[in-house]
Amino acid sequence: MSSKKDLNVGLVGYGFMGRTHSNAWRKVGNFFDLEYAPRLKAVCGRDRNNTEAFAAQWGYESIETDWKAIVNRDDIDAVDICTPNNTHAEIALAAAAAGKMILCEKPLSMNAEEGKTMVEAVEKAGVANTVWYNYRRTPAVTLAKQLIDEGRLGKIFHYRANFLQDWTISSDLPQGGAGLWRLDVKAAGSGVTGDLLAHCIDTAIWLNGGIGEVTAMTETFIKQRMHNLTGKVEEVGIDDACSFLCRFGNGSLGLFESTRYARGHKALYTFEINGEKASIKWDLHDLHRLEYFDHGDDSRVRGWRSVHVTDGDMPYMDKWWVPGLQIGYEHTFVHQVADFLEGIAKGEPTKPDFKEALISQKVCDAVLQSAQSRQWVAVD
Amino acid sequence: MSSKKDLNVGLVGYGFMGRTHSNAWRKVGNFFDLEYAPRLKAVCGRDRNNTEAFAAQWGYESIETDWKAIVNRDDIDAVDICTPNNTHAEIALAAAAAGKMILCEKPLSMNAEEGKTMVEAVEKAGVANTVWYNYRRTPAVTLAKQLIDEGRLGKIFHYRANFLQDWTISSDLPQGGAGLWRLDVKAAGSGVTGDLLAHCIDTAIWLNGGIGEVTAMTETFIKQRMHNLTGKVEEVGIDDACSFLCRFGNGSLGLFESTRYARGHKALYTFEINGEKASIKWDLHDLHRLEYFDHGDDSRVRGWRSVHVTDGDMPYMDKWWVPGLQIGYEHTFVHQVADFLEGIAKGEPTKPDFKEALISQKVCDAVLQSAQSRQWVAVD
Amino acid sequence: MSSKKDLNVGLVGYGFMGRTHSNAWRKVGNFFDLEYAPRLKAVCGRDRNNTEAFAAQWGYESIETDWKAIVNRDDIDAVDICTPNNTHAEIALAAAAAGKMILCEKPLSMNAEEGKTMVEAVEKAGVANTVWYNYRRTPAVTLAKQLIDEGRLGKIFHYRANFLQDWTISSDLPQGGAGLWRLDVKAAGSGVTGDLLAHCIDTAIWLNGGIGEVTAMTETFIKQRMHNLTGKVEEVGIDDACSFLCRFGNGSLGLFESTRYARGHKALYTFEINGEKASIKWDLHDLHRLEYFDHGDDSRVRGWRSVHVTDGDMPYMDKWWVPGLQIGYEHTFVHQVADFLEGIAKGEPTKPDFKEALISQKVCDAVLQSAQSRQWVAVD
Amino acid sequence: MSSKKDLNVGLVGYGFMGRTHSNAWRKVGNFFDLEYAPRLKAVCGRDRNNTEAFAAQWGYESIETDWKAIVNRDDIDAVDICTPNNTHAEIALAAAAAGKMILCEKPLSMNAEEGKTMVEAVEKAGVANTVWYNYRRTPAVTLAKQLIDEGRLGKIFHYRANFLQDWTISSDLPQGGAGLWRLDVKAAGSGVTGDLLAHCIDTAIWLNGGIGEVTAMTETFIKQRMHNLTGKVEEVGIDDACSFLCRFGNGSLGLFESTRYARGHKALYTFEINGEKASIKWDLHDLHRLEYFDHGDDSRVRGWRSVHVTDGDMPYMDKWWVPGLQIGYEHTFVHQVADFLEGIAKGEPTKPDFKEALISQKVCDAVLQSAQSRQWVAVD
Repeated sequence: MSSKKDLNVGLVGYGFMGRTHSNAWRKVGNFFDLEYAPRLKAVCGRDRNNTEAFAAQWGYESIETDWKAIVNRDDIDAVDICTPNNTHAEIALAAAAAGKMILCEKPLSMNAEEGKTMVEAVEKAGVANTVWYNYRRTPAVTLAKQLIDEGRLGKIFHYRANFLQDWTISSDLPQGGAGLWRLDVKAAGSGVTGDLLAHCIDTAIWLNGGIGEVTAMTETFIKQRMHNLTGKVEEVGIDDACSFLCRFGNGSLGLFESTRYARGHKALYTFEINGEKASIKWDLHDLHRLEYFDHGDDSRVRGWRSVHVTDGDMPYMDKWWVPGLQIGYEHTFVHQVADFLEGIAKGEPTKPDFKEALISQKVCDAVLQSAQSRQWVAVD
Repeated sequence: MSSKKDLNVGLVGYGFMGRTHSNAWRKVGNFFDLEYAPRLKAVCGRDRNNTEAFAAQWGYESIETDWKAIVNRDDIDAVDICTPNNTHAEIALAAAAAGKMILCEKPLSMNAEEGKTMVEAVEKAGVANTVWYNYRRTPAVTLAKQLIDEGRLGKIFHYRANFLQDWTISSDLPQGGAGLWRLDVKAAGSGVTGDLLAHCIDTAIWLNGGIGEVTAMTETFIKQRMHNLTGKVEEVGIDDACSFLCRFGNGSLGLFESTRYARGHKALYTFEINGEKASIKWDLHDLHRLEYFDHGDDSRVRGWRSVHVTDGDMPYMDKWWVPGLQIGYEHTFVHQVADFLEGIAKGEPTKPDFKEALISQKVCDAVLQSAQSRQWVAVD
Repeated sequence: MSSKKDLNVGLVGYGFMGRTHSNAWRKVGNFFDLEYAPRLKAVCGRDRNNTEAFAAQWGYESIETDWKAIVNRDDIDAVDICTPNNTHAEIALAAAAAGKMILCEKPLSMNAEEGKTMVEAVEKAGVANTVWYNYRRTPAVTLAKQLIDEGRLGKIFHYRANFLQDWTISSDLPQGGAGLWRLDVKAAGSGVTGDLLAHCIDTAIWLNGGIGEVTAMTETFIKQRMHNLTGKVEEVGIDDACSFLCRFGNGSLGLFESTRYARGHKALYTFEINGEKASIKWDLHDLHRLEYFDHGDDSRVRGWRSVHVTDGDMPYMDKWWVPGLQIGYEHTFVHQVADFLEGIAKGEPTKPDFKEALISQKVCDAVLQSAQSRQWVAVD
Repeated sequence: MSSKKDLNVGLVGYGFMGRTHSNAWRKVGNFFDLEYAPRLKAVCGRDRNNTEAFAAQWGYESIETDWKAIVNRDDIDAVDICTPNNTHAEIALAAAAAGKMILCEKPLSMNAEEGKTMVEAVEKAGVANTVWYNYRRTPAVTLAKQLIDEGRLGKIFHYRANFLQDWTISSDLPQGGAGLWRLDVKAAGSGVTGDLLAHCIDTAIWLNGGIGEVTAMTETFIKQRMHNLTGKVEEVGIDDACSFLCRFGNGSLGLFESTRYARGHKALYTFEINGEKASIKWDLHDLHRLEYFDHGDDSRVRGWRSVHVTDGDMPYMDKWWVPGLQIGYEHTFVHQVADFLEGIAKGEPTKPDFKEALISQKVCDAVLQSAQSRQWVAVD
């Protein structure tokens, strides 16, 4: 224990993501053998009482109520940004300027332009940085990446993904404020595009390479909602649904959809990749399974295999329990922390870093622009 | 067409099974290239009007109202027995004596003793004979047989099967009479044991060999029901549920269950076989699929394969449509007719013949005896 | 039997569809109680030997080798067109002029312009007409229609469908000629758009109403193939894959995809509809099931229901077997024949008739045009 | 934080279960708001180095190498027993005598006789006690319990459960020693009966009440294995497979099976309950789902519902993430700790306590006795 190096973490924001990150920081050392041991040095939130309660529950050593204090404290090594999207850039720029490592929630920024300033800042500062596209580190998804990299799929023809939810169908739901900032375009930048499709796009680029051009369609089904911060009924600025067609750089065709109006789906992120030799499917609602079809199988017993990704020879799974016993959502964050700590020990980036996350940001921008212009748009 | 030989069929009984058989006789020639062409020569039923209507609907050339007439007509080659279980023996014995081929609905007989007389009769008469254990000829089940025979499973450890229904849960349902004779012990001999478990046992013996001994349990949940024939409330004599443990001759362990009180299951016949090298599962509710697990697969992509049994290299499927397009329940009967016609052309038996069906009858007897005696019972 | 009216059928073409139609004509009377009894009067094919063999196998009373003979024979009531797409119009126009009823394989025509002439012809002639969009009459799909019409889904937000196959991935596969005309743009008009997406579009319009505008993308993965008719390697003119986004007239968003390059899918036609109150999913690979999610269920036991569409109170299923015993692909054609025969008895159209099928043809045209122009295209 | 009461925990054993328990003790306070806060006071193991490493990884404040030291330390409130089965009784008796609370891994004891002494000891000492039958606290399983208690299933007809694994098929696997004591009858008492069936039986009794009598069958497929502790090939004393039929006190029929020779199943614990009004299924390989069939549903849309047990109104799930995001295996232990801490705060037992766990122990004894005697055996 004494041989571990401390990594002092300062968390900004204590909402849903604040909880998932805190859990990851706390657990990682119990399951992974790492050179660095995270210490929960401080958490920052604007409401002192809530922040104190959160600190007590998660074991943070101190609290702050102004994120600038986190950024400027000498005893903080890494700033973990869990605040709404419209604050990512400001905090990240300051943290970079202060020489802190940065772990930023996704999406990177409100738009690509803003994201570029963030990339420049961390590169200039030379600080470790990563963006929490946690689903990459679902063992089944990481396994998919390995299989693709091993050439098992051969030439790729199709990539399709969607992220379907149904929690905002009611017109009674207000927009904005605590817990609902994702519905407020000023805080979120966009609706499902930045919230959900950004995950699909990040995974897609990781697995299948860059996207060349897109044609998109968005819709806002409920046009006006009460705004929690103003108390008034206001125009809804976000997209409730967004879908797009695209072409990847490798010649494959893409199809993406996201919505919060798909009755019956809570958080159904799925993707499927069809290659010449094999195909892969995955589904967040059963995240511990990977569906795999190998055309090379003897034809009479060929079929989609439901792989229960719980064995020790599968990604990350030697760290957990025994075959057949599944892990869950929260573990994807533990894996990202583990990789980040290993990355800084080795001096290697933890992907997606800001630079890589900027690529998916550009796709999001192109998608929203295409939906607006009704034209195919090339990704910058 | 002129090169085909006629096979003149006389059907006895026009209930549910009469329909499935008639459909099979009519369709087989459209899909299979066979030496024999069945002709629907006559159908027999006790109610003249109903029998005439059935004949008109299915294209039978004539009707009879006494099965003895069918057996004795010179223009009948094969007698197809679709009547309640308590009439199988009498009709079959007469048909054999008359030198007719016999296709008998399952179970063969009311009990093994009766069944033995039937086996002796057909063997003495030297007539072609078969019992309609149709599920053997579900393409997925036949494929399972092939895989086992190829040694893909290796040594077998476990065989489990069940047949679950829920249609008799209501106490308002009467017993006996048209459409309900399966609930009348005098007509059926037993309840789920002869009706449902007999299928499971037939498949099991076919796939996994003989059963040595059994310990069983039966239950009649609703003890009294109105009898449709007498108009009185009478004791229910059948078993509503039956389960048993057994040991197979090959050293594997068996587990069987059947019931008509499994809410939510209409006709869920399933089996699973676990071998040293591979396992197989099948389910009548999705009869066009076979689940296959091959331990020899690369461990990171090993999982149960859902094989959609619709390709031309799978049993019987070159006769039907194209890959992906499923067949249904009725086709299992068509396959049995096709095999029967091919069998008589080649002078080979169509399994299960009476002799083989007697084996499962003996297991049924042992199961019922064990349930009664509360002892392990060796199969005769 | 004598009370039935004959309907004399003349079949043009004896390929895959010729078989499915013949089977439907032959079986319908065994299962449905109808005023009309179809008679297989004649089948027409260019190769005399093959046509005779087909006639013998299916029981056609006569053969022709020129379709014009079928159209002009006085003893033919209905012409059933099963030939490649580029012949539909010519045959249909002649049949209409001859006063014949017409059953035309889908898609209606090579394009909407040609389709209009067909609509005008049958309307002018006043002959019964229908197009074989058989999947509408899958019991699960018909049930979906009923549920929507009953208002169970409420306002519709999303419709997504795809039709995925993998049979043309090999570059060794030739184009054109017997069994492969679907790969020859001159015979087929288009690739997956007319072959597969047309089904998806027909069902979508039936269930969800008209489509307003589309943006589409097509791809031909293998650019050149040996042509079986010319013996030369030629440019491939068909689309191997096609996907499009659209807006329906009811305000819902649509997403459609079709391909023959989705490794692992044989004939996976699926659709999903998300409404405010409920959602529905269906999948051709398990065509006897309907997935249904009812938001009105008690929240703790709310989930997607897998409805095994085999009960007597479900569409068409009172005609077949008993609960739990599934039907297959071929039955969808039997249902269309049954509805057609009932329609002519009642003097009512059997949908989709030519007029209704023209609507989906227009969508196909718009899709192909959008893929070409890279613009959103309004459906005519 | 200061308002929490400490509960000082002493863990005995640091194997697989030592990890799951440690994780539970550490995490519980982050997610549950409880009066007691567990402190990881000490862990005990025979190997000093391994124990120190474990303590460092999990944050235990001290170590011991003799469990008697744990039992006798004044600063330990609760003894958590994670050692092989043959040591449970001795440690528990001493802990009770020392007035410690006891959390004992399952099964309670080597047999019922031994278990009775443990029950007597904790009752005499008046100490809080519980047995880690963790699967009860899978949210889906707890939900099943709620649904049954609400009367949603009505009268129960059938209960079936199995626990299937495949990890001991190889004859090369040794028996005994670290990580393999479950294969050594002297350490484990039995094979799959105590290890796996005990879970099935515990859940069954909890959900469906007491079991009256059983008939059972066991098998040891591989008769001799190298023993890791003696270095010699020795007879295998454990059961590799065990199945039994039973009758429950409520009149329903039971069917249980467990094996380590079911190729393709890693840790497939499943159960299904069929009631007059509804049925329930669950499966450990997808532990976050509950299958529910409600016969009261409108018949045309009736089917098994796949309930994704991740919403806040489902058991324990308000403590975790948001709908759609699943938890895993480890959380069942967190829930048991949470309930235990709440139980001691309220002075209520945490079921199953020793007394309740003795009931399933008696069923295990009856099962093993029946397999030996080949007779039905009444549960004591």
